[in-house]
Amino acid sequence: MIKPDFEKTGGLVPVIAQDYKTGDVLMLAYMNEEAWKKTLETGKVHYYSRSRNKIWLKGESSGHVQLVKEIFLDCDLDTVLIKVDQLGGAACHKGYRSCFYRRLDGNELKIVGEKIFDPEVVYGKKA
Amino acid sequence: MIKPDFEKTGGLVPVIAQDYKTGDVLMLAYMNEEAWKKTLETGKVHYYSRSRNKIWLKGESSGHVQLVKEIFLDCDLDTVLIKVDQLGGAACHKGYRSCFYRRLDGNELKIVGEKIFDPEVVYGKKA
Repeated sequence: MIKPDFEKTGGLVPVIAQDYKTGDVLMLAYMNEEAWKKTLETGKVHYYSRSRNKIWLKGESSGHVQLVKEIFLDCDLDTVLIKVDQLGGAACHKGYRSCFYRRLDGNELKIVGEKIFDPEVVYGKKA
Repeated sequence: MIKPDFEKTGGLVPVIAQDYKTGDVLMLAYMNEEAWKKTLETGKVHYYSRSRNKIWLKGESSGHVQLVKEIFLDCDLDTVLIKVDQLGGAACHKGYRSCFYRRLDGNELKIVGEKIFDPEVVYGKKA
């Protein structure tokens, strides 16, 4: 099976999720080999949560699942790029379309991203 | 100074370089705080090479410098997205426009990226 070089990276590789229609970079998270396999098997992006130490189906709480459209590996086989159909239109747990919703503007971070949902409504608590 | 949370990440953060015109994801590499500062000071993307253990001006050998257009930080302040003007049109040391030049196609990796230069000519040896 084609896979990233998990041995080289110590078990986890960074994964960039990109909107397959707009080209927006939505988020970066990590996969271990099991998350990679589950992603291929199901067509839904699974990550490995480093804080919770477990496999995580993106959207399992919010419903904002990422459907796999295309998968790319980089030249060193240690980074993955996945073009996804982002259900619900938002990847970020803060309710924004992209996790990269703040732009550096001089010495400030300016919110430039589009807010799609209220995290308190979706998750039932402050995110 | 606004900066990624280098303490949380143990000193290095992943950085996604995206073509500011086409939206193509070009590469992923890492920055430490010094690389972050040099990038802001010079307007040219600097990374930290984990294999060479040193700061690296992207394009220092090839001339394929990345000029900073916009910088974004993610919701957790542990990943950077930089929109760049990729001089020379190629980010990958293999000569491709993007490091993500291979797409998973069944159980194969299919080259779908555009080759811009011959690494042997640019670097004077096999890359």
